[in-house]
Amino acid sequence: MGREKRGYLADVINLREQDIDVLVVPGGLGTREAANIAPVIEFVRRVYGTGLQYLLTVCTGSAVVGMAGVLDGRRATSNKKAFTWVKEVAPAVQWVPKARWVVDGNVWTSSGISAGIDLIYAWVGEVWGEEVADLIADSSEYERNRDASGDRFAERWGVV
Amino acid sequence: MGREKRGYLADVINLREQDIDVLVVPGGLGTREAANIAPVIEFVRRVYGTGLQYLLTVCTGSAVVGMAGVLDGRRATSNKKAFTWVKEVAPAVQWVPKARWVVDGNVWTSSGISAGIDLIYAWVGEVWGEEVADLIADSSEYERNRDASGDRFAERWGVV
Repeated sequence: MGREKRGYLADVINLREQDIDVLVVPGGLGTREAANIAPVIEFVRRVYGTGLQYLLTVCTGSAVVGMAGVLDGRRATSNKKAFTWVKEVAPAVQWVPKARWVVDGNVWTSSGISAGIDLIYAWVGEVWGEEVADLIADSSEYERNRDASGDRFAERWGVV
Repeated sequence: MGREKRGYLADVINLREQDIDVLVVPGGLGTREAANIAPVIEFVRRVYGTGLQYLLTVCTGSAVVGMAGVLDGRRATSNKKAFTWVKEVAPAVQWVPKARWVVDGNVWTSSGISAGIDLIYAWVGEVWGEEVADLIADSSEYERNRDASGDRFAERWGVV
């Protein structure tokens, strides 16, 4: 590992929580274990209180953020196969069953993992403009799903 | 790192080349440097000669495989923004400019990175059946691009 790489890692390690502008919280099977996610819940709670500009979640990342209390009373979505569990662990959230992603204030939550790709492109479009988002998508040869409410997986997995 | 993980890594390290059934070669900027890819080219050449069942590439991974001589006279595709470079470094390949992915015998090549997702689902469909491929895609909430020849990025990046 070269000096530059070490320097970069040191920067990341020394990053103060109040310096974080955008936090992306991923999901996955690891979110199902309380011992795994307890420190993550604490981290999200602390960072959200320090002036975070955007909080983005993919898949069951919204369950973690929900358990942190950050989504109380807000609209949000999550993985459709895990939706029953998600509603149970964070009952104070206004869960939207049929949505590829949901925006409520500065919190952007997406459904299952692939929906996270479309959420990120939509968010890039919001922050840097649609031309930039499309340039990145075209360079990656990605066909965007642009409709946040278009979600056939809600029916596919029986949550509507 | 637990015992199981160490055991798994040891298995991977001790994997003999002739035991590889399916080889996936990724692309990216790293493929542009000759010093970087020389050992990869050698590896692909050796493994392909040992009875590999399938060779899959994503993005400029097909350029690497092309430079290994494995694609000589075969039909293949690659990243559309890098297409001119790809044709230069592997001129003996029948490069297909307008294709999301191309299948020629046991070699499956895809275009830019996102096309690699569709290639993998199509390949899973071929090997394990479309029902399995769709179950994985639905579980991942992925909207598949099912047409291998549907490729608006060929025009977008001026290769047709």
